[in-house]
Parts: sequence; C-alpha cells; structure tokens
Amino acid sequence: MAEDYHDRIRHKGLRDRVVSADQAAGMIEDGMVLGMSGFTRAGEAKAVPLALAERARREPLKVTLMTGASLGNDLDKTLAEAHVTARRIPFMSDPSLRRAINAGEVMYIDQHLSETVEQLRTGQLPPVDLAIVEAVAITETGGIVPTTSVGNSASFAILAKKVIVEINLNQSEQLEGLHDIYIPTYWPVRTPIPVVTPESRVGFPFISIPPEKIAAIVISTKLDSSSTVTEPDAETRSIAGHLTEFLKGEVARGRMPSSLHPLQAGIGSIANAVLHGFIDSPFHDLTMYSEVLQDSTFDLMDAGKMVFASGSSITLSEAKYRDVMERFHDYKRKLVLRPQEISNHPEVVRRLGLIAINTALEFDIYGNVNSTHVMGTNMMNGIGGSGDFARNSYLSVFVSKSTAKAGGISSVVPMVSHVDHTEHDVDILVTEHGLADLRGLAPRERAKLVIAHCASPDWRDQLQDYHDRALLRGGHTPHLLEEALSWHDRLRRTGTMKPE
Amino acid sequence: MAEDYHDRIRHKGLRDRVVSADQAAGMIEDGMVLGMSGFTRAGEAKAVPLALAERARREPLKVTLMTGASLGNDLDKTLAEAHVTARRIPFMSDPSLRRAINAGEVMYIDQHLSETVEQLRTGQLPPVDLAIVEAVAITETGGIVPTTSVGNSASFAILAKKVIVEINLNQSEQLEGLHDIYIPTYWPVRTPIPVVTPESRVGFPFISIPPEKIAAIVISTKLDSSSTVTEPDAETRSIAGHLTEFLKGEVARGRMPSSLHPLQAGIGSIANAVLHGFIDSPFHDLTMYSEVLQDSTFDLMDAGKMVFASGSSITLSEAKYRDVMERFHDYKRKLVLRPQEISNHPEVVRRLGLIAINTALEFDIYGNVNSTHVMGTNMMNGIGGSGDFARNSYLSVFVSKSTAKAGGISSVVPMVSHVDHTEHDVDILVTEHGLADLRGLAPRERAKLVIAHCASPDWRDQLQDYHDRALLRGGHTPHLLEEALSWHDRLRRTGTMKPE
Repeated sequence: MAEDYHDRIRHKGLRDRVVSADQAAGMIEDGMVLGMSGFTRAGEAKAVPLALAERARREPLKVTLMTGASLGNDLDKTLAEAHVTARRIPFMSDPSLRRAINAGEVMYIDQHLSETVEQLRTGQLPPVDLAIVEAVAITETGGIVPTTSVGNSASFAILAKKVIVEINLNQSEQLEGLHDIYIPTYWPVRTPIPVVTPESRVGFPFISIPPEKIAAIVISTKLDSSSTVTEPDAETRSIAGHLTEFLKGEVARGRMPSSLHPLQAGIGSIANAVLHGFIDSPFHDLTMYSEVLQDSTFDLMDAGKMVFASGSSITLSEAKYRDVMERFHDYKRKLVLRPQEISNHPEVVRRLGLIAINTALEFDIYGNVNSTHVMGTNMMNGIGGSGDFARNSYLSVFVSKSTAKAGGISSVVPMVSHVDHTEHDVDILVTEHGLADLRGLAPRERAKLVIAHCASPDWRDQLQDYHDRALLRGGHTPHLLEEALSWHDRLRRTGTMKPE
Repeated sequence: MAEDYHDRIRHKGLRDRVVSADQAAGMIEDGMVLGMSGFTRAGEAKAVPLALAERARREPLKVTLMTGASLGNDLDKTLAEAHVTARRIPFMSDPSLRRAINAGEVMYIDQHLSETVEQLRTGQLPPVDLAIVEAVAITETGGIVPTTSVGNSASFAILAKKVIVEINLNQSEQLEGLHDIYIPTYWPVRTPIPVVTPESRVGFPFISIPPEKIAAIVISTKLDSSSTVTEPDAETRSIAGHLTEFLKGEVARGRMPSSLHPLQAGIGSIANAVLHGFIDSPFHDLTMYSEVLQDSTFDLMDAGKMVFASGSSITLSEAKYRDVMERFHDYKRKLVLRPQEISNHPEVVRRLGLIAINTALEFDIYGNVNSTHVMGTNMMNGIGGSGDFARNSYLSVFVSKSTAKAGGISSVVPMVSHVDHTEHDVDILVTEHGLADLRGLAPRERAKLVIAHCASPDWRDQLQDYHDRALLRGGHTPHLLEEALSWHDRLRRTGTMKPE
C-alpha cells in the first residue's frame, strides 16, 4: 500500500501525514464546522465521513456540514441517521436527510450555490474548522488536485484552520490538469473575474495552500456513486422538441447564432432529455457553462455537436463513466472544472449570456417558479444554482411536466405555494404541451400564454376559470387570495388537486 | 432665443435641427416604441411628451413607453390620462398610471432596472423607434450631455433609429463632466466591466452617437420636479438606530471597516432616515454606489461623513436643489452619474460588496419580501433596482415600519402575498421594534427572530400562534396553506387585518 500512494503524494514532507480514516475522524470535535468536498454526488470525501458516522455511534457528536452540493455514497443518509448533521449548508438531495430537515431535526440553510464561500470569507457564516477534501494527488509543492468535482473545496481548504486530504487511488490520475482553480480577490480590492468564454483558464490546476495546514492524509479507494439516468420518455422528448423549435426561431430571427449561447442545464431527467434533443438539432459548435456535466454533455461531444464544456463536477452513469475514463485524453482539452463560485458567478453568467435551463417543481399562471418546496412547506432538495443562473442569464428557461401523480397534480397552478424564482427572472416556460415566451409581457398577458400553451388540457379550464374570476376583481396580477392556494391545500388533505 | 442655445448646441451642423415641441411630437407615429430619458423624476424629456399628450387629444395614438425609471412633472399621469401609454417599461410611480395598470388598461412590464437595455440590444424587447433625451448640451462632436439622470438614455439613443434631443436651458451647464457613459461590449465579445470602486471612471462624459441620427432638437426650460422629503419620525429614527447599532457590531467583529462597504439605498422616507442616521454614527469616509442620490447623500457629504457617491440620478427637494447647484463645483469631484445598467449591474454590485438598503411593503416570518403588490394583486410602483441590489450585495437589508393604516395592517405576515425577494436574498430585516439578522439560519430559526424582533407587539401573539400551529404540521418552512393568506384576504374584505 505504502508504495501505491507515493506517486500520489509528491510532496515528500507530507507522506508522513498518512493516517487511518478513524484517526482522521478523531480530529473532529463536537460542534465543529466541516467544509467537505463533493458536488452533485461527485468527488466527495468518502472515508472520513463514514468513520465519523461510526464514531458518532459510540460518542454523540454533532457538526455543521458544508459541502459544494449533494453527496454520493449515501453519505448524507449515513450522517443524518447517525445524528451527526446538526446544520447542513447549502444543498442536499438525500431522502433520509430530507426527512430530518422537514421534521425540524436538522437545520438546513438553502443557499444560492455561488454565495456560500462569499459569506464564509467575510465572516458572515461561522468559520470552517476543518476541510476534508478528496484529491487525485498532492503535487510537489503541496498543491491539492481535486477529483471529479471542485465545488467549494478550494475555499474550504484556504479558509479552514486544518485540512484533511483523502487521496482516492481509484480516481484517475488523468484528472490532473482538468481543474482551473481561481479565487476572486478579497475586499476591498476586488477586481474583475477574467473568465470571458467557457474555455477561459485563469487559475491554477490545483488548490494552493501552505502544506503545513494539511493535518492528515487518508488513502481511500471507493468510487463516486453513479447517477441513474432516466431515458427520455414521450413527455420529456416533447419538452425538448418545443425548446428546440423555439431556439430555431430565435436563430432565424437573428437573435443568436446557430451555435446558440453557452448552455447551462440543471440535473435530472428533463434537462437531460432537453440536452439530448440537441443531438438531432441543426445547432452546432455548442458550448456549455454549467454546474454539472452529465452523460448528455459527453453524448453531445460524441455527436460532434458540442465543442467545449465548463462545469464544477462530472457526474455520470456507470457505463458512461467507464467509457469517458477510457477516452479521457480525447475529452480533456474540451473540459474544465471550476470552483462553483466561478461556474455560478453572477458576473460570469451575465457576461457569457447563458441559456439557462432548469427544472421547476411547479409554476404559476403569472410565471413565478417553485423549485424547492412541495406544497409550500416540505423541502425537496434546495434551490441549488438555479437562482444564480436564472437571474443573470441571457435566457432563463424553466421546464416541467405539466402534471404529476398520474395527473392528480397540475404543475401549472393559480399561485405557486413557494417562490424561488420571481416572474422577473423567468423568460420561457415549457411543458410537454408547449412553450410560453413571457418576455416583454405583463402578467395578464403571461397568464393567457401559460394556460393555453403549458397547462395540461385536463387542468386548462379550471385555470382559465380562476383567472377569469380573478380578472373581475382586477389588479396588475389578479388573484383570488382566498382561493389562490386552495389547490395545494386540497392536495395536502386528499392527495390530489382534483375537486372533491 | 436663437443666441441663447448656440453655446448649448456646439456641433454647428446640428443647429438647424431645432424645431418646436409640437413639430418633434409630430414625428411620433401610432404604435411606436419610445425610449425616453428620466430616472426617479430626474432628467426626463419634458416638452415633447407634453406635446404628444396634447396631440393625442386630437388624434388617438398609442405607444410603448420605456424610460429609466419614474418620470417627474406628472408626465406619466398626463400620458396615461391622454391614453397614449399602451405599454410601460420598466418602472413608474404615478397614481393615475398605477390605476390604469391595475385596471388592465396599460400593460406594465415590471423589470429589474439593470436588465431593460440588455434585453433591448439582444432583440428580446421590441426595438426603440425613437429616443427622446433631455440634455444640457450637444458637444462639438455631437455628443449628448445628459442632465440630472442617465438612466437608460445612452442605450436608447444608441439603439433607436432616430433621436430627439431636448436641450434644457435651465439645467445647469455645470452638470457637464458629471456623467460616465460606459456601454458593455456586445455578445459574443463581452469583457469585464472595469468599474472596481465607486469612484471608477471608465467611459465618456457624453452619449456618443452619429450626429445624423439626431432628427430634431427641442429647446425646453422646465425644471425637474422636486422630491418631497418626509422628515424622519420616531419610527424611522428607530429603524435607523437599530441598523446603525447592528453595523457598529459588524465593525467591532472585524467584518467590515468603519468606512463600511459602499452604500445603496432605495428611495423614500425610511431609506432617507436611515442615511440621515449615519450623520451621528461613528462611521466615516462612507461611499455610495446607488441608483438615486437624494438629499441625504449631500447632507452626509456636508457632515463630512461621505467622500464619494455614484448614482444614476440626482433627485432633490427644492431647497436642497438650490443649495447643491450653488455649490456644485465643490460637490462635482465627489460625484458620478452612470447608466442604470452600470449603477445596478450584478457584476459591479457583487464586486463592490454593497450594503443594500431597500424598503419592503411587507415581509413574512421566513424572510420573503414583497416590494410591489398590495394584497398580492395591485401594483404599487415596481421592483425597481431592489432585485439587482438585494441578490448581489454583500449585505441585503430590508426596512419597513411594522404596521400601516394606524395599526390595522401588519407589515410582518405569515406569508407574503407576492414575492419579489426570496429568503435566499434577504439578510437583515428591520422595523422600528428591532432587527433580525437572518444570515446562516434555517426558516424555523428565522421565524423566531422575525416575530420577536420585528413584529409589532400588537401582532406578535397572532404570528406566534400561526407559526406554532404550522410547526405541528411540520416541514422545512411550516405553513398552514388554508390560512397563509387569510390576513390579506381579511384586509381586502374588511379594510383591516384585525380579526372580525
């Protein structure tokens, strides 16, 4: 084993820091703030958190856990069930943790993903005691080379008092050189972030910290969890079709070139289907400036449609992972992974003029979007980067199937039960039934389009009836307050939005 | 008269373009899109829109009216009452126009103020047929020198097919040199905006367009409307006091220097009182990076507290206007006026790390803010720049009196009836009763603070009762959907939120 990792710890002075995961977990104290690598189930520290959960079975301890985004390998589940996670920042997607959050057992701070480290470095969040970061290698100078994600790892390591590095022997050495670690200058001397295209490289290929801050190194071998890719179905294919047609129209009107603008796409089966839809489109030389690079990114590259992709993580299905790693040399010059502060930065998002495609849980007839709360109260996953992108993009698109629960829930509602994206930030809404282009329209005009183009025919009359009656009462955004949330309340009481 | 304006039209070839306001208004055709100067009742074109309203009494015509923000001299009222305004973008504050908007007679597109010209130049809004811009002078090369606001005037003039310039002889020639007109580069070559401090000057002191685009010049003399400044009262003084104490704490904790971060403040009596509160504070060498520079900006300069202010308009009371203009030479090197795209640009707002202080119409126990809609339906003024600032600032503060209508309305509610700023974008809430610091807190934790610190004692028990009962039902953001908007519905029915 010792020899196995010598070429992974190239800074000789650090080789004696190698300890067991248990020993490293022993450095964690009750009440600490941990900053852990991991973004959308990619590149999370794996051995130490497991050892921590184990330890918490013997001696109760609670921590604040910050990450990039969601963790793989059921770590959020394991830590939540061991009651280690007292506070969780800024994103998660695990059902067990979700249950604990909705029961009020875990305090969850749901943030725009670009903002966490900004608040950390200005002392507006409690300081990180310990950073735990998965790495491919440590360079000769002590630079930490991340694995399949960057997330918040760089700033965690820079800001933390001490750092534990997990060298993962099964993460490919080919990943070295993939990352572009750029940290914005600190107040009061803040200068422009020099990223001007998805391809821009402006930082170092490793996280640069004083080597003496590395308090422990743990060797691990567990791989990232694979993503489960749902194949496009008739509905997601329709959504992709409507969006492709719309974009063809935009190109025809001269509003954008046939290489479009750089694409951002949220995670999940709909966004995946939309990206797949571009394979058979007339668009070409596409680029991506997004958070997560999924199977579809590589499929688009294989199809000769996409020329470059910038992200903060690579999250793939098992088959795709094997395939990509075998041919990684070919992909590498078309890829870069950045800190999520940069991948999601308002400055860069606005400058690059992204087409931002994100998934809505539900939206209302006036164009407000709920991305997070089921029936206005129960947290699903968190807002993630959707706010970073939707507010500042060139074109903000939200996609959703028009119904859920076998038609018992309409995703188009009179008033959303929770607002994550206001009408000001929503340009285009798409369901399998059609697309509503809301740009330059007043709320009354938006409602007409949303009902006619996006709602399921099964729900259209009821939405129209609500809107008609609200219009009688008047207002810029007509509503019947006593009825606006009644569809959700019915769902809560009866399990369906359908009239009793 | 002819001699009067010769030194104001220094480009000799343009002097023969001078026509009457009626002649200029004759160039406007039914259905046109007009881009007019004017931002928060400062620097609007005055003669041509009046002549247009007059003309519309004889022959019906309707236009889309875009401006920087609200207009002075009752122009929005006059144009609305003459039924000229068919569509209005992106901000207004006139009661007559508001009535027409809420009746559905005028289509109002309520936008983040930084975004209008971005959408215009990419063809996402209908193109501007005619720009009408108030100016101090036209330079030797045909450059248009704006008056007391920049707003969207520069991009309107650049993008419009033709431009009408209103030379206002009563706007001081001293204003020349005050403006910094910088236009971001266009896609696909977008480079960083070089503003790195409130003082940065990165553009030209005039609007640069080909002189042949200036189709007409009108001479006018009417002054800007004065702002009505409400003197601080006991409640707004309390709000200012709570915020000052909080900021002193932030300085003591080392989170910011005693010159704070650059300040942004919305318009209105509360924001004005808050800024006045800084006169007796220990802070010094303050700077401002805001939209509107009001009386308080100059009072802070006079008190030796503020060293520089960047804005998009200067909007003053009558007395202050006289005073400032008399001593304008002394103020000028401490001031700059920019296009609203730059004063409000997400890139610059985040880089400079603003303290953004804006007024809420109401906010809820979880920290969501309504800035625009009375009882969820009726438009007040529009979101203005508050979204540009709140999302990207270092510290996002919202202020409000805790009650309205002699206590019959609580500004702190179970659920806001319209969301303009989501909990993700709201750091600090302040009323006369106290301040809630929501940073790093989960919704349940936020509710405790908001109820205890911000709500009026008259409403505290009812809010707590709602929250307690919602907690029994559970969820990340506990709500009773059937009751969440009942306070607003009661207000609508009975004129008070108080139980029947």
